[in-house]
Amino acid sequence: MKRILNLLVILFMTVSTIMAQEKKSFTLEDLMPGGNTYFNLQVENLYGLTWWGDVCIKPEMDKVMTLNPKTGKETVLFTLEDMNKALEAAGINKVRALYTLSYPWSDKTEVQLPKSQRFAVYNWKTGAVKTRDDLPKEPYDNVSLNSVSGHIAYTVGNNLYVNGRRVTNEPEGVLCGQSVHRNEFGINGGIFWSPKGNLVAFYRMDQSMVTDYPQVNTSTRIATLEPDKYPMAGMTSHKVTIGVYNPSTNETIYLKAGDPTDRYFTNVSWSPDEKNIYVIELNRDQNHSQLMRYNAVTGAQEALVYEEKHDKYVEPQHPLTFLPWDEHKFIYQSQQDGYNHLYLFDLAQGMMHPIETEGPDKLFIPQTQITKGEWIVKDILGFNNKTKEIYIMSTELSPLQSNAFAVNIKTGKTRLIGAGEGVHHVQLSESGKYVIDNYTSHSVAREVNILPTSGKGKGVNLLSATNPMEAYNMPEITLGTLKAADGKTDLYYRLVKPVNFDANKKYPAVIYVYGGPHAQLITDVRNYGAGGWDIYMAQLGYVMLTVDNRGSANRGLEFENCTHRQLGTEEMKDQMQGVELLKSLGFVDENRIGVHGWSFGGFMTTNLMLTYNDTFKVGVAGGPVIDWKLYEVMYGERYMDTPQANPEGYKKADLTQRAGDLKGRLQVIIGANDPVCVPQHSISFLRACINAGTQPDYFIYPGDGHNMFGRDRVHLYTRITRYFEDYLK
Amino acid sequence: MKRILNLLVILFMTVSTIMAQEKKSFTLEDLMPGGNTYFNLQVENLYGLTWWGDVCIKPEMDKVMTLNPKTGKETVLFTLEDMNKALEAAGINKVRALYTLSYPWSDKTEVQLPKSQRFAVYNWKTGAVKTRDDLPKEPYDNVSLNSVSGHIAYTVGNNLYVNGRRVTNEPEGVLCGQSVHRNEFGINGGIFWSPKGNLVAFYRMDQSMVTDYPQVNTSTRIATLEPDKYPMAGMTSHKVTIGVYNPSTNETIYLKAGDPTDRYFTNVSWSPDEKNIYVIELNRDQNHSQLMRYNAVTGAQEALVYEEKHDKYVEPQHPLTFLPWDEHKFIYQSQQDGYNHLYLFDLAQGMMHPIETEGPDKLFIPQTQITKGEWIVKDILGFNNKTKEIYIMSTELSPLQSNAFAVNIKTGKTRLIGAGEGVHHVQLSESGKYVIDNYTSHSVAREVNILPTSGKGKGVNLLSATNPMEAYNMPEITLGTLKAADGKTDLYYRLVKPVNFDANKKYPAVIYVYGGPHAQLITDVRNYGAGGWDIYMAQLGYVMLTVDNRGSANRGLEFENCTHRQLGTEEMKDQMQGVELLKSLGFVDENRIGVHGWSFGGFMTTNLMLTYNDTFKVGVAGGPVIDWKLYEVMYGERYMDTPQANPEGYKKADLTQRAGDLKGRLQVIIGANDPVCVPQHSISFLRACINAGTQPDYFIYPGDGHNMFGRDRVHLYTRITRYFEDYLK
Repeated sequence: MKRILNLLVILFMTVSTIMAQEKKSFTLEDLMPGGNTYFNLQVENLYGLTWWGDVCIKPEMDKVMTLNPKTGKETVLFTLEDMNKALEAAGINKVRALYTLSYPWSDKTEVQLPKSQRFAVYNWKTGAVKTRDDLPKEPYDNVSLNSVSGHIAYTVGNNLYVNGRRVTNEPEGVLCGQSVHRNEFGINGGIFWSPKGNLVAFYRMDQSMVTDYPQVNTSTRIATLEPDKYPMAGMTSHKVTIGVYNPSTNETIYLKAGDPTDRYFTNVSWSPDEKNIYVIELNRDQNHSQLMRYNAVTGAQEALVYEEKHDKYVEPQHPLTFLPWDEHKFIYQSQQDGYNHLYLFDLAQGMMHPIETEGPDKLFIPQTQITKGEWIVKDILGFNNKTKEIYIMSTELSPLQSNAFAVNIKTGKTRLIGAGEGVHHVQLSESGKYVIDNYTSHSVAREVNILPTSGKGKGVNLLSATNPMEAYNMPEITLGTLKAADGKTDLYYRLVKPVNFDANKKYPAVIYVYGGPHAQLITDVRNYGAGGWDIYMAQLGYVMLTVDNRGSANRGLEFENCTHRQLGTEEMKDQMQGVELLKSLGFVDENRIGVHGWSFGGFMTTNLMLTYNDTFKVGVAGGPVIDWKLYEVMYGERYMDTPQANPEGYKKADLTQRAGDLKGRLQVIIGANDPVCVPQHSISFLRACINAGTQPDYFIYPGDGHNMFGRDRVHLYTRITRYFEDYLK
Repeated sequence: MKRILNLLVILFMTVSTIMAQEKKSFTLEDLMPGGNTYFNLQVENLYGLTWWGDVCIKPEMDKVMTLNPKTGKETVLFTLEDMNKALEAAGINKVRALYTLSYPWSDKTEVQLPKSQRFAVYNWKTGAVKTRDDLPKEPYDNVSLNSVSGHIAYTVGNNLYVNGRRVTNEPEGVLCGQSVHRNEFGINGGIFWSPKGNLVAFYRMDQSMVTDYPQVNTSTRIATLEPDKYPMAGMTSHKVTIGVYNPSTNETIYLKAGDPTDRYFTNVSWSPDEKNIYVIELNRDQNHSQLMRYNAVTGAQEALVYEEKHDKYVEPQHPLTFLPWDEHKFIYQSQQDGYNHLYLFDLAQGMMHPIETEGPDKLFIPQTQITKGEWIVKDILGFNNKTKEIYIMSTELSPLQSNAFAVNIKTGKTRLIGAGEGVHHVQLSESGKYVIDNYTSHSVAREVNILPTSGKGKGVNLLSATNPMEAYNMPEITLGTLKAADGKTDLYYRLVKPVNFDANKKYPAVIYVYGGPHAQLITDVRNYGAGGWDIYMAQLGYVMLTVDNRGSANRGLEFENCTHRQLGTEEMKDQMQGVELLKSLGFVDENRIGVHGWSFGGFMTTNLMLTYNDTFKVGVAGGPVIDWKLYEVMYGERYMDTPQANPEGYKKADLTQRAGDLKGRLQVIIGANDPVCVPQHSISFLRACINAGTQPDYFIYPGDGHNMFGRDRVHLYTRITRYFEDYLK
């Protein structure tokens, strides 16, 4: 009997071994962006899907198809060959791929070509090619086309040009037509065409008074200086103004906003009639925002339309959205009730009140809250003129998800569009009748559907992809919640168990952390967002944990702003709840807990290594903030105020002060030319450790910025892995 | 019987354990400069011994003694208290210690005080204090006093001042009165008083055409640029001229040396009559030196006095020395017979020959070789007017030693002064009758004697120190020779066995290497020059080996210049002879051999790790040269020629080319502001390794230069030790 049992055991072991052998193992080349085989593991996708009016455009290798959103029927629109013949005849570079064309004119059989084709327009019906002669010969950038007027704006060097004409003539320290305020407040460009393209607003940033950070390029024959204007917290910042250029008169005016010192000019929006420009303006303290209306022709400040104040900070991130069927109504987004929601303002009902003190008159407008609830509106997709619906992306179903909803603008009632799980990327058709819905979830590798926004009819499925990771010996990846250190807030965590997990073993564990605002590491996507490195480490026998602590994104204002003036403190307490979870599992070796993170996560990693130095044995901190004094004005002062106003907070978060507390092995890694967390952070930390007699490790990626890409990223994670293998295994 | 034996064994073990316990163990704090207890292990010394004529000055804490060199009898010369009273009355800072005063006037009872006392002169007989009113209020530097005329020269910023008067008025890129040519060719200052102090010659270096290396200071609020003129091999170099200032006429002339482009002006020497200035001039190739005579009043180039050429390089390092009893005779030092020796030139017998080609006339002078042999004259101490002897330091007894000799100027016969072992530091009295002889050897901790140069009489012993290391459990340190890779040259090596050595064990071994020109690691001093770190590592159980390979100092020209145009190649072959020695010992684990070195030794370390990557498992390379293109013109081109002239040699020695060959663990460590081996070396190496997919480690000392001092040095060697302990133990 015993013999048979033995035989069975052997048989079972053999079978399970074979089964395990059938599944493949990962290399870092498979799992890291930049790896040689990285794309093999990416889920199939359809590239370049877009709308031409209400017709879905589906590019292929050699032709562009149209797809009927009702029936799914595909028809050839034009071929690459035909288009290239026409381009060649017009003296324009050939197009290699059809995935980056755009179709802004639903009433014309024309396609807009990209910069490499000098923005030529191809008519697929007539074969005609419209070229333009108003582009410069020298390098140009920040291109903005208006599809109604056909005007084009761009920058050459630090100056703005429109239709081949130089608009600004500023010296080197003054930038025009570019993003300002270091891309905070949702800013990602500096050129704003009016709806019909008759006027163009643009940012002008004078940074001549800002101190240079001396970045050094070591790839030249002898190293060369590459100075970078970097306003550090509490120091003199740049000054931003907004110009408006009229291409037909060749005249420029500037909005009369007063002294721009220590002010932010954000979310530039045009009124549909092109008569007004709206700007959300903030004081340097970032605790008082004002929605200001300007006359677009004279630049006069017409009215203070709305304002918000908050003890901690106000952070406007969305321009106004005017209703397409009523030029007097716009949607304003605000976190004033604790979550980002939509508010409807009716200018027709506004009443001007002169303000007694200096400044513009105030316009009182009744505001109606459209959406409401303990969830966040993430984006406005557009409208349906007929049904008067507004389409949004929101976290209504779960903070981990992003789903499309139709919103009844009067009742605020929402109706889900598409599957009730996962993270969706949605494109609305011109009329608002259809969406292209591309989504993934923990259980769906990818689905791409065309869906009617009405919810009536099942739509057309374009892709149901399989997960190429299924061929591999995957670790178990689970989602869970734990209580934050405040004892009440639920935090999401993601746990990755070692491959070939054995509950009787004791494994080392590594926490992968970010922890700062505007980011969320755990979402309802494949593997709950676990990165390739998490999976690789699990294959090497590590337990990997990630916790989205208080302070991180998509959980509302209070969840985020509890970290104000004390970055790191509450966030670390929550991470320690994650450590408690690890200890409770029974299969984690408490003496072998490590931590890794980048940027804010590098700050968290270093801070955890110093603060909880008996818990964490090994850490790798990438591009870390070490001292918030050395970080830039906009992001830094929002969360920390100025060093002058919050000296205790800055001191508490200054990791050089606690360099002597380092006990475990900590490797700090930076891009040697990091323009975001400048090298001074890490270098100051090394100096402090040397003075305190502690021994961090250090590495740099010469020529790299705040992150490593391509082969450098593979090298980086080879390095990080080796460090844990050296000291935590 | 067996029981008794056991008992005996136990007894013996106990006794030997107790004996071992009686000896102390070292900490790094004991052994490293900068360590808290470092001075406890330094051998006692007598500080500030000097000559006042033929009377020996012996400073103590509170008084200065004179010491009769014949009898040793000590007498109080003056007390600190008396002097400070006089200084106070004159409004001069008090003196705290008596060790840094000088006694240039043997005919006066006066002592010269240092800069902190504004060069006041105190007469200990009369109590009078001479102050001077010609010193500036702003910071000044490079002070040169002439004790005959009493004139003083110094620099403020980049300009020269004499007696409070501004002599030069140059813009920032032009330096006057400072060292030039990056301290090569024996240059260590830029002010040269004529013997009687009536004229002062000075260097003027225009480096406005030299590229800046962008050094960055990260200790300021925001990092700041500190550009440093750094002429890299093959690039545009600075231009040096020599001015002569006459304080009595306030006039300056410049020597008419022609276009200074790509030329070196070295070893400025005055004729005793102050009428001529001699300069040894080199071409940029450094293979042709010319001893040129100038008229000190007009600046006219009078004659080419002597010239040397060599296929590889000529390296003049010593100014002329005129005989005190004959103004027409001078001693010229040259390596022309393969070893640095003295040559006597008699200007009285010179004959002018006009040269047919352009340039100065040539003066033919019979030269007489004074010293000769396969050894090196290291220094001229001075003369004895009566006996017509010249006193020198040389390696005549052994390349590891430095001994004083009296030389008969006619016969060249030498007579040893003092002990025939060790490394001596010798000061000659004014008449040449006595020396203060301070020496150490492998067997003598320190002796300080006053000796008659005649060799008659035994002299006076001032100190016979004990070795404080005797209280410690010392490793065995032995000296030996092995054959160089050329199969014929003997190389010296130093072997340090582990403390409590057991020949049956297998130990890891570390080679400590320098290997470059102008340095010698093994000499006949305490522990044969083994550093504190060697001893510490031996205590931790490492075998430590050092080999002075071909290319290193004090072995003659051919020994040194076999490395020409191929730095690293021959040097490494010799180090591999050291590896063979280690393997032959029987107690070294061949799989655990490491290497460490700094500067040229960092170059050697990195090179060995890449070239012999199966031999060396762990290396720590400090401040390494990685690519000689990035090193400076003077040193770099002497040994490597220019990158344009020797592209293959540069490529072969460029370690970035072989970054992919790294197999073992290599940590590169630099001072982040190293002005000698600029950070670009190491940073380029890291970039090459990243591109090649290899993984060096890296650390920097922010704010430090080419070497770490004080506490940083203790931190550094804690770090280096840890690296070997992590990966080689």
